[in-house]
Amino acid sequence: MDPHDPIEHLVGLLAKLPGLGRRSARRAVLRMLMKPEVQMLPLAEALRAAAAAVKPCGICGNLDAEDPCRICRDHTRERGLICVVEGVAELWALERAHAHRGLYHVLGGTLSALGGVGPEDLSVQPLLARIAEGGVDEVILALPATVDGAATAHYLTDRLRPLDLPVTRLAQGVPMGGALDVLDEGTLAAALRARRAV
Amino acid sequence: MDPHDPIEHLVGLLAKLPGLGRRSARRAVLRMLMKPEVQMLPLAEALRAAAAAVKPCGICGNLDAEDPCRICRDHTRERGLICVVEGVAELWALERAHAHRGLYHVLGGTLSALGGVGPEDLSVQPLLARIAEGGVDEVILALPATVDGAATAHYLTDRLRPLDLPVTRLAQGVPMGGALDVLDEGTLAAALRARRAV
Repeated sequence: MDPHDPIEHLVGLLAKLPGLGRRSARRAVLRMLMKPEVQMLPLAEALRAAAAAVKPCGICGNLDAEDPCRICRDHTRERGLICVVEGVAELWALERAHAHRGLYHVLGGTLSALGGVGPEDLSVQPLLARIAEGGVDEVILALPATVDGAATAHYLTDRLRPLDLPVTRLAQGVPMGGALDVLDEGTLAAALRARRAV
Repeated sequence: MDPHDPIEHLVGLLAKLPGLGRRSARRAVLRMLMKPEVQMLPLAEALRAAAAAVKPCGICGNLDAEDPCRICRDHTRERGLICVVEGVAELWALERAHAHRGLYHVLGGTLSALGGVGPEDLSVQPLLARIAEGGVDEVILALPATVDGAATAHYLTDRLRPLDLPVTRLAQGVPMGGALDVLDEGTLAAALRARRAV
């Protein structure tokens, strides 16, 4: 097929999105071409508008159309509680769970010896600067339960210790609805160690 | 979430595409927002360009940036062979298979008593007019092997009979790589009836 063809070009770009292969991209393009004014042009405009408006929040690193982002601007939130996350996807997931009423700090990754990611590649200094400004009561490390996530949490705990601030991390245990027989041994052992009185 | 937010608006539009749910739409948006100039703006432009350029071919009904489409303009193809398909998706599938070296005719659907689709809703008159112009040696009915597809094939065969033209349809049988024990009875019976000497 001709790559200069507008249909093939569009299919190729759509197929690069996560979750869409070439086959489903083709199906989506065909569906959109049935009513271009209703589906195609609004999507083109929404992409353009989002690319123009959305930028990282200068305070926490969230992606939003406003800077500071709407979370950092929300004065009804607990401003002394900072939840440190790996990326924006994790921030959005916590927001969808309505689980955290404080603010966030996006690290932009985790430390990785193999990946060559050091502390200077992450938003560590801005986090320390935020805390140095005062008003922070607790830092929650909501990092992934992986080797790199644990290394990052360990490193941050070391850096935060001199500030004499409560540093917490997410509980580990059996996920909601999780059947015990399909859980990995690490999770089971962690859940058993952290058992609580009923 | 705020529907006027450019991120939520974009996620909502993307989530309407076949094959993408809200979760994968959100992942795709997040991925694109990481490098808006590389992924987002080119996609917006490709959508706009396709919406502006692509239209149905006045001869066969294929969707293409040119009218007549590149298949109808291709004089190396067998112009006396017309393959009748339900929609553009089926036409593209046959093209990907490099299975047909003639031309096409897109009906725009199949007859459906339940769906209230009659012959006047399909591109039947334009097909008869094409054939009346002469030069057609054979009409291949490549319609779906469903009740509606069979009814449509039956109707078209009736309409084409007076023109005294060979009318053929796709063979039915065991699909390539198909295990017999998971095939439905209808396909097995059709394959057995149409058995051939080895």
